[in-house]
Amino acid sequence: MENSGACQGLTRPIRCIVKLGGAAITCKNELEKINEENLGTVSSQLRQAMSSGPDSQKILGMDWSKRPGESELCCDVGGFYDQISCDSSNFVVVHGAGSFGHFQASKSGVHKGGLDKSLVKAGFVATRISVTTLNLEIVRALAAAGIPSVGMSPFSCGWLTSERNLESADLSMVVKAIESGFVPVLHGDAVLDSQLVNVFGVYDRPPSEPEAVLLREIAVTEEGSWSVVKPNYGSTNKPVEITVAAHDTTGGMVTKIAEAAMIAKLGIDVYIVKAATSHSQRALSGEIRRGSIPDDWLGTVIKFAGKPAQH
Amino acid sequence: MENSGACQGLTRPIRCIVKLGGAAITCKNELEKINEENLGTVSSQLRQAMSSGPDSQKILGMDWSKRPGESELCCDVGGFYDQISCDSSNFVVVHGAGSFGHFQASKSGVHKGGLDKSLVKAGFVATRISVTTLNLEIVRALAAAGIPSVGMSPFSCGWLTSERNLESADLSMVVKAIESGFVPVLHGDAVLDSQLVNVFGVYDRPPSEPEAVLLREIAVTEEGSWSVVKPNYGSTNKPVEITVAAHDTTGGMVTKIAEAAMIAKLGIDVYIVKAATSHSQRALSGEIRRGSIPDDWLGTVIKFAGKPAQH
Repeated sequence: MENSGACQGLTRPIRCIVKLGGAAITCKNELEKINEENLGTVSSQLRQAMSSGPDSQKILGMDWSKRPGESELCCDVGGFYDQISCDSSNFVVVHGAGSFGHFQASKSGVHKGGLDKSLVKAGFVATRISVTTLNLEIVRALAAAGIPSVGMSPFSCGWLTSERNLESADLSMVVKAIESGFVPVLHGDAVLDSQLVNVFGVYDRPPSEPEAVLLREIAVTEEGSWSVVKPNYGSTNKPVEITVAAHDTTGGMVTKIAEAAMIAKLGIDVYIVKAATSHSQRALSGEIRRGSIPDDWLGTVIKFAGKPAQH
Repeated sequence: MENSGACQGLTRPIRCIVKLGGAAITCKNELEKINEENLGTVSSQLRQAMSSGPDSQKILGMDWSKRPGESELCCDVGGFYDQISCDSSNFVVVHGAGSFGHFQASKSGVHKGGLDKSLVKAGFVATRISVTTLNLEIVRALAAAGIPSVGMSPFSCGWLTSERNLESADLSMVVKAIESGFVPVLHGDAVLDSQLVNVFGVYDRPPSEPEAVLLREIAVTEEGSWSVVKPNYGSTNKPVEITVAAHDTTGGMVTKIAEAAMIAKLGIDVYIVKAATSHSQRALSGEIRRGSIPDDWLGTVIKFAGKPAQH
């Protein structure tokens, strides 16, 4: 997740971009329900990863708002005076929508476009309310764990999607937030994200099939082609056929690898790992980056392989 | 509230910018509590003002998210098919913070700056969570009333405050939202706003004083100076002394008039009126704009007076 300078305007490189899968932080089988346990675990793991100081430092929450059913606000202001400012900057959190937004998007067909139609316009408004609610809950959970999180919406940041591809991305406010020591929390597209599942990493076929093999390391060439390094499929170095069967009708997994490969090409290692597990913690701690991938670690690492040999 | 073209990039002028005072839409005496009744009334009034079609058209809500305590999402999708797309565009809603954000801001002194301090940084995060919660609730109330509202945060839109003045305001996303037929809902500054009270308009002294007189019409010259037209203070045309006593230590009301005067100079009439009353409804209906101010209407109108006479 090291960045060699892809994001212009930053005086220091981004240390880590963490994507929280929608399926991991929300309840799959109940609409608009947060998976509080997973979200709490993820927030603690992130806080530990960001903290450079000793772990014994007291966690001071930054969500001072009321909880439903409570009438008092509370905050431990005194604790901040003797705390060394935790420089948790240069992290970015991106999250999916999971069980938020999906109902509204599919009811209205908003992902097909056509804002001149009443229903599509209403669906856009309803979808945005739903994903903004999720974004705010994630920001609150991270803040409660002591992370200076600031929610940012793709729409109000100047992100436009045209034919479902990211057309323009004005990252200047994201950069400003990072420079000021905050952790931007951005949400993804409700429609595209809703298909994805909560698994250990990238598999060579639908993970529900018994023969599915977890791809543990993928190398990306300068041209953007990629091959599986681990498990070793022999010296042919031929790309593994990824079976995009019924579970992946929209091409979600292939798109995901292609996007990860684009990031890896910039020199930024990409980890695809199940959230709120010991595997995500080990990835965040830097352990996986430092050496070869341990056998007991489950996940997929996508790395830049450097220039290919001349033919 | 007519605009003669101040907002560049818009193909049609903005019809109306409505500022909802924080004190009107939240409960003054309870932290982080919405005044649901007022907010509901305001939303209905706005919906009526935006609607160009007959009032008999069925209101179709655009907030399809769960309410606290409910387990089902609901939306009447069928109704949208036979509805003429309500072109409620070219409205902008701005709201104050009221009882949201104030606790967090004052606890941390975030309005004094100093983001390098742990406490101030935490206060910024906590304040933003609180005002974002309010913004989302207002967006939901407007959407439920059938207004295609889209929340936008000053921070993520590229608004920066430097020494408490608006330094830069990138309105391009606001313009894009309006052009697409949405109603942007922006929130103001939690700190500056928290001092203001919920009154009928601008008075010549603290409204709690028995001699306080409601200023009903203020005229602004091209140089930005302003004078009270109604009530008529005699032919001297001398600006009324506004007593900025204890209730207004931060200069909130003087700043408010100065800001309104800047807007009026652009040819946009400014109405300062108590929310969720018949007076706000009459202002929104256009009745006050069409003729002279009726005696039974309570509020303050700030208008451009044109070029002053040459001396």
